[in-house]
Amino acid sequence: MLRTLATDAVDKIGKTIKLQGFIEKIRDHGKITFLDIRDMSGLIQCVGENLPKVTPQSAVEVSGVVNKRPSKMVNKNIKTGTIEVWITRLEILSKAEELPFDMGKDELGLQLPTLLDFRTLTLRHTKVAKIFKVQESLMEGFRKASKELGCTEIFTPTISASSTEGGSEVFKVDYYGHGAFLVQSPQLYKQMLVPTFERVCLVSRAYRAEPSVTTRHLSESIQMDCELGFVDFTDLLDAMEFTGRETISYAVEKCKDVLNEYKVAEIKVNKNVPRLTLREAQKILMDRTGIDHTKELDMMPEDEREICKWAHEEKNCDFVTITHFPTRKRSFYTMPDPKDPEYSLSYDLLFKGVEILSGSQRINDYGELVKIIKAKGMNPENFKMYLQTFKYGMPPEGGFSFGLERLTMLLLDLSNIREASLFPRDMERVDFRLPPKNKEE
Amino acid sequence: MLRTLATDAVDKIGKTIKLQGFIEKIRDHGKITFLDIRDMSGLIQCVGENLPKVTPQSAVEVSGVVNKRPSKMVNKNIKTGTIEVWITRLEILSKAEELPFDMGKDELGLQLPTLLDFRTLTLRHTKVAKIFKVQESLMEGFRKASKELGCTEIFTPTISASSTEGGSEVFKVDYYGHGAFLVQSPQLYKQMLVPTFERVCLVSRAYRAEPSVTTRHLSESIQMDCELGFVDFTDLLDAMEFTGRETISYAVEKCKDVLNEYKVAEIKVNKNVPRLTLREAQKILMDRTGIDHTKELDMMPEDEREICKWAHEEKNCDFVTITHFPTRKRSFYTMPDPKDPEYSLSYDLLFKGVEILSGSQRINDYGELVKIIKAKGMNPENFKMYLQTFKYGMPPEGGFSFGLERLTMLLLDLSNIREASLFPRDMERVDFRLPPKNKEE
Repeated sequence: MLRTLATDAVDKIGKTIKLQGFIEKIRDHGKITFLDIRDMSGLIQCVGENLPKVTPQSAVEVSGVVNKRPSKMVNKNIKTGTIEVWITRLEILSKAEELPFDMGKDELGLQLPTLLDFRTLTLRHTKVAKIFKVQESLMEGFRKASKELGCTEIFTPTISASSTEGGSEVFKVDYYGHGAFLVQSPQLYKQMLVPTFERVCLVSRAYRAEPSVTTRHLSESIQMDCELGFVDFTDLLDAMEFTGRETISYAVEKCKDVLNEYKVAEIKVNKNVPRLTLREAQKILMDRTGIDHTKELDMMPEDEREICKWAHEEKNCDFVTITHFPTRKRSFYTMPDPKDPEYSLSYDLLFKGVEILSGSQRINDYGELVKIIKAKGMNPENFKMYLQTFKYGMPPEGGFSFGLERLTMLLLDLSNIREASLFPRDMERVDFRLPPKNKEE
Repeated sequence: MLRTLATDAVDKIGKTIKLQGFIEKIRDHGKITFLDIRDMSGLIQCVGENLPKVTPQSAVEVSGVVNKRPSKMVNKNIKTGTIEVWITRLEILSKAEELPFDMGKDELGLQLPTLLDFRTLTLRHTKVAKIFKVQESLMEGFRKASKELGCTEIFTPTISASSTEGGSEVFKVDYYGHGAFLVQSPQLYKQMLVPTFERVCLVSRAYRAEPSVTTRHLSESIQMDCELGFVDFTDLLDAMEFTGRETISYAVEKCKDVLNEYKVAEIKVNKNVPRLTLREAQKILMDRTGIDHTKELDMMPEDEREICKWAHEEKNCDFVTITHFPTRKRSFYTMPDPKDPEYSLSYDLLFKGVEILSGSQRINDYGELVKIIKAKGMNPENFKMYLQTFKYGMPPEGGFSFGLERLTMLLLDLSNIREASLFPRDMERVDFRLPPKNKEE
């Protein structure tokens, strides 16, 4: 007999079906036992007499007859709430050991270390699993938006001979006895493809060996990127806001139920995202809070939260674009504003109080790039392939990137980015907590 | 004035337009100069009098009037072959240095080291760039096929505490002073997600520190994977063949023109892919060639080519599935055939004489896995997160994976996999050829 998915069983009243899934809950009423079985389509209640002993999370196969539930027993919270299956055969495909905690609750309610130490188990919990359905939708939304921008999808390497952004926060790889690095971002490679395709998009990895543990950084993360040629600063702002808005709107629309379950407040997507220079934003903040951050070179986390509150209240929008960050605070390839080179043609898109997309127009002149690389104390020889691109003609161009886990965390109001990564990597953890290092090493 | 894309200019006869692109060819006829300009949509011929001096590959902006060409001057090879643009203004946005070779030929005709040493330049060549349009289509085809299988797209880590398959061919990473590895494949992680989503698909990286240089291996490659729960061996063969067939058919359909340009012979996609056990295939090969490989534990490269010839000639199909490889030749997680445990429930899909997809049903019993890990001389402690999955209930499951670059190479009959990677990594190259190692190290 072919397998029936749980949610397809509602159309099979009176018929005998075969189900396959995991035991989510067991309610033992003496001779009669109720089993909630979960498969890829959802949950279904099964019931039987004198069943063999089963344990929660065991993988089972069940044959039985689909019955309509009496109306007062209907469960409106699940799609199969109007039916139950009377079990005629129960086969245990794989028996689960005793669980370290109750998996049958609506909320797991575990501390983060436990959530991650038992990751293969906690990911089975429906509410946890749904985080990654939202993540999948964000990725689909990004792909849709970047295709609409006319981007070609490319695949760039993660092992590199030079560090992308300079700095020491890179992971070193032993590459056949040669020193190599994991890329901090696909930045340099995506730029190199602009003369080939003009507009490119990609999903890659970003590796950051930052020696700190925060709630919003990972050592390995999934990065989504676009890079566009023959564009000016306004084109870039339009493209960034379009991509951010469409990516989020797509997931919000597709995952309404999950957002409701996570009690996410309605998101205001105004097509006219307010745009402020850093200096303008700082002035608004001083007016609102009385605290003077106008001399700061960047937005403080509390500034990001407050300016988003301003956009929400004053502009009916949960996004706000900040532009013109100080040139020396951004990466070497960022184009200084020709009208005021202390500030750069850079931008961040903020959402729910946090930066989600970041980018800039790039320097596209070979000589300028060599000069700035040297001025930053780096060796142009280490950027030889990158610089080659500019030798042979590079139009005005720019782009932006964003992190998938951070976006997932923000959209669902999760308190820690690790909840938005299937197997998060940080300074202290690779699957399990790393052992303490020998201090003498 | 807004920019017009080259291929949109055909509808603008008599109008003044603005084009942006790269100079592909310059034909200097004294006072009159013809410029072929390439943008993301294609090529367009522009012509003008007393133009400023330009160089090939420079990025330019051109204003001009669209004219119909006389019928005998029509170029049927390009979409804009019926028109040309009379240049009224030419602005050089970024001037290219003198090129190291002629980029204006239909075929670049470079040796591989030159092709890669000037990668940012050679990728601009239309015929080279099209390889990656085919690659993009293969990825789209894979995503479409895996969605049809009901897979959830997941994102798994590339930094791991244990090597996936055992063996020493792994890249070591200095992870905050701890030893870690780059994954040889996402195999273990995708299996861990089966109890969460039942069916998963993913695009990840595969890192192989193989100390050899061949025409069909890369040290870093893009890997596409599926893993399905609650399936038997036949379900898995069906899913693998479906995915392989649909991925290729999608790209063939979408990139017809490129395949023609690459003179690719018509591909026979028969929905009934012939299935042979390794032993059956070896017998057919002995009958065809007279050479006895029936004692071999695997297919030799010449065997793969010959059995594909057999499938093409006898079964009207360019695919052939080989099953039941010897258990000891496959990875530890491969399920032995219960009827004959010397052989395993494994399979390869061959296409054009080469293996493109590979997979198996997996051992899904915790105790069996621990036993085999120990028997292979590995430490179960290194597989603790992986094994956790099986402790808490794992249904019969299996999957398959394939490499994007190899598939691209085969589809276009390229002679070296490096041509199918934007920036290939191998033992000898990271962008440029690595310097010789100090032998004393």
